[in-house]
Amino acid sequence: MEELPPGFRFYPTEEELVSFYLHNQLQGTRHDLHQVIPVVHIYELDPWHLPSAAGEMCRGDTEQWFFFAPRQEREARGGRPNRTTRSGYWKATGSPSYVYTAGGRVIGVKKTMVFYKGKAPAGRKTKWKMNEYRAIIQGASSW
Amino acid sequence: MEELPPGFRFYPTEEELVSFYLHNQLQGTRHDLHQVIPVVHIYELDPWHLPSAAGEMCRGDTEQWFFFAPRQEREARGGRPNRTTRSGYWKATGSPSYVYTAGGRVIGVKKTMVFYKGKAPAGRKTKWKMNEYRAIIQGASSW
Repeated sequence: MEELPPGFRFYPTEEELVSFYLHNQLQGTRHDLHQVIPVVHIYELDPWHLPSAAGEMCRGDTEQWFFFAPRQEREARGGRPNRTTRSGYWKATGSPSYVYTAGGRVIGVKKTMVFYKGKAPAGRKTKWKMNEYRAIIQGASSW
Repeated sequence: MEELPPGFRFYPTEEELVSFYLHNQLQGTRHDLHQVIPVVHIYELDPWHLPSAAGEMCRGDTEQWFFFAPRQEREARGGRPNRTTRSGYWKATGSPSYVYTAGGRVIGVKKTMVFYKGKAPAGRKTKWKMNEYRAIIQGASSW
């Protein structure tokens, strides 16, 4: 992965995001992915500080930025993730949807969130949006 | 220019199209451009045959395709281009607009066209659209 010719940008489909990037990240094999999607503790930053944390191959992007967000400890223990930042909090909106392969297999879940400034539940809604993708890894089915 | 990592696509701004691709093409210097934007006599093809003529770095694109269309002889002699294809014709819609650099300099003109099936002026409008970009090259100003 190197510099791109003019006019080329990272504009992934949801399938590419989950089936290539997220899967490879979870398998821990390809470290060159981080030039495209770096690992960032996103809740340690307010949303307006995220664009400059984007991957080096996506620096010029002006609309969207991609990160691998490590699972929080409390989440790993079965709790709910803490989506509070210094200046506000992210809150889910709408209902989760699934991500499918072209062949119709479910490979992930997408949750859309909106950033609120201030303290929950009295924060003011902002224009910052985030889509969270989780991989669904299907084990071998028993029979 | 080689193969792209997953999720990367050609999604140029109008400025990139004109100031990098079209200008380099007109100067005849960089032939690797044709992997992205090939030279195609677009009026010899009906629109539905254009996608498979796209540049090899843009083969997967499903929404838009880019071509360098050589000037027709009659146009070079000062006439109007003939935009008739085998099954129909392209017709301008709306008024032309300008393409600017980020600094506000005019570098091109954009014309949007729609494809009509059948014979002019009685063709049936289709969903095929084309944007035509022409470079405006400003010579040294005299004083």
